[in-house]
Amino acid sequence: MQGELSGERVIVAGSEADILGKGYGRKKGRLELSLEEACFLLENEKMEIKEKEEKKLNLKDFLKHALDISPKFGVRYLVYRDLKERGYAVQPGGVDFWLYPRGAKPGEKPARYFIRILSEMDFFPLKDLAALLISARNMRKEPVIAVVDDESDITYYEVKETKFEFVEINKEKKEEKAKTTLLGDRVLLWDTNLAENLHKNDFYGKLTKEKRLLLSLVEAAYLMKKNMLEIEVREQRSEKFIDYANSIESDFMDKYAVYEDLREKGLIVKTGFKFGSHFRVYKARQQKHSSYLIHVLPAEHVFSMSELSRAIRLAHGVKKRMIFAFREKAGEENIIRYVDVGRMKL
Amino acid sequence: MQGELSGERVIVAGSEADILGKGYGRKKGRLELSLEEACFLLENEKMEIKEKEEKKLNLKDFLKHALDISPKFGVRYLVYRDLKERGYAVQPGGVDFWLYPRGAKPGEKPARYFIRILSEMDFFPLKDLAALLISARNMRKEPVIAVVDDESDITYYEVKETKFEFVEINKEKKEEKAKTTLLGDRVLLWDTNLAENLHKNDFYGKLTKEKRLLLSLVEAAYLMKKNMLEIEVREQRSEKFIDYANSIESDFMDKYAVYEDLREKGLIVKTGFKFGSHFRVYKARQQKHSSYLIHVLPAEHVFSMSELSRAIRLAHGVKKRMIFAFREKAGEENIIRYVDVGRMKL
Repeated sequence: MQGELSGERVIVAGSEADILGKGYGRKKGRLELSLEEACFLLENEKMEIKEKEEKKLNLKDFLKHALDISPKFGVRYLVYRDLKERGYAVQPGGVDFWLYPRGAKPGEKPARYFIRILSEMDFFPLKDLAALLISARNMRKEPVIAVVDDESDITYYEVKETKFEFVEINKEKKEEKAKTTLLGDRVLLWDTNLAENLHKNDFYGKLTKEKRLLLSLVEAAYLMKKNMLEIEVREQRSEKFIDYANSIESDFMDKYAVYEDLREKGLIVKTGFKFGSHFRVYKARQQKHSSYLIHVLPAEHVFSMSELSRAIRLAHGVKKRMIFAFREKAGEENIIRYVDVGRMKL
Repeated sequence: MQGELSGERVIVAGSEADILGKGYGRKKGRLELSLEEACFLLENEKMEIKEKEEKKLNLKDFLKHALDISPKFGVRYLVYRDLKERGYAVQPGGVDFWLYPRGAKPGEKPARYFIRILSEMDFFPLKDLAALLISARNMRKEPVIAVVDDESDITYYEVKETKFEFVEINKEKKEEKAKTTLLGDRVLLWDTNLAENLHKNDFYGKLTKEKRLLLSLVEAAYLMKKNMLEIEVREQRSEKFIDYANSIESDFMDKYAVYEDLREKGLIVKTGFKFGSHFRVYKARQQKHSSYLIHVLPAEHVFSMSELSRAIRLAHGVKKRMIFAFREKAGEENIIRYVDVGRMKL
């Protein structure tokens, strides 16, 4: 097969256009290949490429040309080649590439995924991660992140909306507010009956052997909002508890907002510290193992790729979904957004 | 038993001083208990505590007093109680506490560990983590970090020096420098013989099916330093490669310094991306699984507790040691320091 290099395209002579049926190129009057497609055919010796009908290009020259046009050509080509070698139909375009369901060819079926390509050394804003979900809704495709690591291995991640099922929550009877003592960065509830109830029915806090309940700051703040308890603080009114909590836990406001949102959905929320996240979340009261790890981030957070990889790998290893949560301004209000990122087996 | 509160101590009447033999308190003329020790005896109803020979204090009043004196009393007491309940002899003092080997009592044997207490919501500078190793050498004790999480559970971490065994490295023959092409954020080596040798003998790079070698920026920089290869860059001299790499990978200088240090020790170093760290390191050429995960940090890095927990938990799950590396100025030179942090079963 013969092609002619023309900027960011390689034009194939009309008679050779049967490769269209093999999933390469697009018909735009003439048949055009992207640089990734042409490079793959060149490397596999299925194509010869000339520049201005003169010099035949070898792979080295072709790579130089491609890198001049796109500095990211290296990682783009590695992902393209990896997907082709795995037997997928893939087409440059969209965010970075379109990926087709296994066995399908472009034209026969619509693409199922769009791929965003990153390198191990890139940084990736949380906002861009969340924006993939908006693109997904608009394009009706599923988002995939492909990360090319320093060893030129590629890890694929799927990005999903998190759909929590709403669970009816116990309507607590408002009794007298329980007395508690602030122990610096946690709160001690003295009433042994209430302590046992809150712990056994709704999984709040840690029950000591004396049947007292140690509550975290977010738990205490939430139960206070529910008029269940009050906090005795010297010289400090309990209404100021949120201010106090915020002064000793730097990300308290974000963390509390997410905690409240999840509890209001009827979910059981406990610290995820042992898994390196803010929360572990149980879908149901009877569940033995938590289903989600939720890490709360400021909306302007920027991920390093190793940070994303570490969080997702850990969650995967303990059979939980890794979910990043953040607060977003929506008009006058703040809403909580959840982005679920997981490893994807291709 | 009767005690009298006196600031940050509780004084025990002389006749009752047999508790000294049970591992509580210190003899300083009279027998003194720390607030944690006294609180533990009070909570277990083995002691009555009075203030100024008047009012008998209940636990709530005692906690208030203790929190007035030390805002961190809550987490300190939780760690103290946890260790006592696990049957350890523990004594307030040193960094936070001294911990004795199982079965030993203070006075009989020296303490084995010193404990640094942190809360899930604390931040912990890398410099403070590394300083624990200096203290350890000075005090001839092993450092332990106790982190009290939001559920008032306690996770213990051991902090160690990393002792890498030096392995004799292959003295590479200096042949002609191999030609390579810069592919943006990686480097492609064309010589198929050299590619196979470097990959099979020293585990460099990724070998493609065409027997070309894809090298990472740190690998390429190191092999260039060893006069093994040169990089063809348009309009750019290969000496400037380090500058180039630094411009596209923000932490390249630190990362490269650690890579070179490890390679010079004869270790096999590959990306640790899949484990969320910069490097995975093999002790020997025949080793199937890597032994260490190494994450490179700027010297001024400050850990969140969840970050530490996530990294260590992941490493533990894949049976590797988690090591944090950073560059430290030592006179005129930079030296690389390695801090090994692992979960500790008590």
